[in-house]
Amino acid sequence: MAVTDAEREAMGRALELASRGPRGLNPQVGAVLLSPTGEILAEGWHRGSGTPHAEVDALSRLTPGQARGATAVVTLEPCDHTGRTGPCSLALIAAGVSRVVYALDDPGERSGGGAERLRAADIEVVSGVRADAVRALIGDWLTVQRLGRPHVTVKWAQSLDGRAAASDGTSRWITGPAARADVHRRRSASDAIVVGTGTILADDPSLTARDGDRLLSHQPTPVVIGARPTPPDAAVRRHPHAPLFYDTHDLGVVLADLRARGVQRVFVEGGPTLAAAFLTAGLADSVLVYIAPVLLGGDRLALTDIGVETIARAHRLTIDEWLPLGDDLLAVAHPSGLEEGD
Amino acid sequence: MAVTDAEREAMGRALELASRGPRGLNPQVGAVLLSPTGEILAEGWHRGSGTPHAEVDALSRLTPGQARGATAVVTLEPCDHTGRTGPCSLALIAAGVSRVVYALDDPGERSGGGAERLRAADIEVVSGVRADAVRALIGDWLTVQRLGRPHVTVKWAQSLDGRAAASDGTSRWITGPAARADVHRRRSASDAIVVGTGTILADDPSLTARDGDRLLSHQPTPVVIGARPTPPDAAVRRHPHAPLFYDTHDLGVVLADLRARGVQRVFVEGGPTLAAAFLTAGLADSVLVYIAPVLLGGDRLALTDIGVETIARAHRLTIDEWLPLGDDLLAVAHPSGLEEGD
Repeated sequence: MAVTDAEREAMGRALELASRGPRGLNPQVGAVLLSPTGEILAEGWHRGSGTPHAEVDALSRLTPGQARGATAVVTLEPCDHTGRTGPCSLALIAAGVSRVVYALDDPGERSGGGAERLRAADIEVVSGVRADAVRALIGDWLTVQRLGRPHVTVKWAQSLDGRAAASDGTSRWITGPAARADVHRRRSASDAIVVGTGTILADDPSLTARDGDRLLSHQPTPVVIGARPTPPDAAVRRHPHAPLFYDTHDLGVVLADLRARGVQRVFVEGGPTLAAAFLTAGLADSVLVYIAPVLLGGDRLALTDIGVETIARAHRLTIDEWLPLGDDLLAVAHPSGLEEGD
Repeated sequence: MAVTDAEREAMGRALELASRGPRGLNPQVGAVLLSPTGEILAEGWHRGSGTPHAEVDALSRLTPGQARGATAVVTLEPCDHTGRTGPCSLALIAAGVSRVVYALDDPGERSGGGAERLRAADIEVVSGVRADAVRALIGDWLTVQRLGRPHVTVKWAQSLDGRAAASDGTSRWITGPAARADVHRRRSASDAIVVGTGTILADDPSLTARDGDRLLSHQPTPVVIGARPTPPDAAVRRHPHAPLFYDTHDLGVVLADLRARGVQRVFVEGGPTLAAAFLTAGLADSVLVYIAPVLLGGDRLALTDIGVETIARAHRLTIDEWLPLGDDLLAVAHPSGLEEGD
């Protein structure tokens, strides 16, 4: 069951279509229907939770019977699950499609199994076509399925000796402009940026992702965790996205709610207590430490207690990269024993 | 006053002779006396404080009058100072030498001026010949003259978050074998290795420089600072060199005494309070931080308070190198605004 050039090309087109859809709770998926001679009959993509899946979107553009004998080229395995929409597997069978080519298996426990159902209906099924390209688009969504929660990056900036500020609390700027620009780029690649109320009260951060004064095109949603109220005039309230406030220290609850809102990547920016809470709970998939060539001493630690009583119980990290940024150094790391964080 | 090939070659020989002398309070100096036709008449070198200087050592191998019209090739400017021996400048003049070629100026306030005195006696004087090679041999001694005290390297090992140990005090091993081997090599390049009594009592270090179990050829003298007594069975008492004990917190006094003992390079190995004391006193010329990819949290800081009240007063460092060592990273740094530490 070799894949034809037309099918491979159609997968490229399906990937383009997929990328038009929104990043969120559901994966971005694109579909192209090809005639038996390889002409494009219809295209479709998924526009977000509650709207038709890509295959159904494409089928809806045809007249009844027009898809008979067609090949469906889809970026993700057609689902076999009735949620807010019906199973795509059944829709394809009903439409008389004779062959399905897709890139990645659906990792969902409930939604997977579409390929099996199609084969049982005597439809040819080919998987793995241009899988890497599709994985590049929906890798974060796949990670959420694997983890059962959003991917969490815990980031802080510190002096070489592990302090976040001088004795009087001043910290602007420990790190230099290259490190700060790197933070903004990585913020922009996240869906939510999380801080504790202590950071809101101490630093009044805007939590926007900027290039100089210019807002970057993608802004993560600001999230504030803690019992203390955020002042009415706090900068975070002027963020392009309305902030989310969680009056709980149960980080599992916070992450579950963020997942339900379509958040795939969370960027935890402090303060020291919140960073320690994520690490202690085993909820840090990636750790970014921006290290400035400065010594501060004193008691303003960048990371507080994480429950390590003896050296054998240390949180071992695997360094993915020691990245020089101007005079500073970024340690890109993930907990040893886990797959690479990103 | 071009330098002849014979003189340049003789300087190489003088450098070899110099290196036979001991590293210590005085510089290592070698001298070669050449006949007017370029043959070697005599050689000499300095064997340490209280013994003849290199020029005088060489002259002493000749019969009276034999040095008349000769050229003296010396690695360091002939001294003009009466200490435990007379001035070399006068000895060369008295011997009837007609030309002096040397590599480096004597930086000493009291000992310098030899070249001037020689010229005043109508002796040709050429300086700067093979200066870099000679500087490579006696660079540490020159640094001591510049600083007025031994050169100080402050070293510690820490977790990424700046801790020296877990909550229960365990720390073996935060860093890996490559980092520990690097420490031993750098210890061996020092003349004295300094710790506080707290480190002696907590870790009972041997303070030897080793390659595995084998002692490296050069062992720095162990130095213990603090009021608490070192136990009779402490490992440091079995060091190849008798330890020095200083019951004072005046680091200037300690360094002055070490200088008087011929110590040129001091390696401060902790603990956290002693490291902080050297930094706070502005007595750290070089800082080495071995960073392990481990998070520990807790209160066992690798560096205690260094009197930084506000961020503008941070101890800024200039990083000479971020050096990966196995899984660890070594920051080789010196205080910004100083010349490079090494």
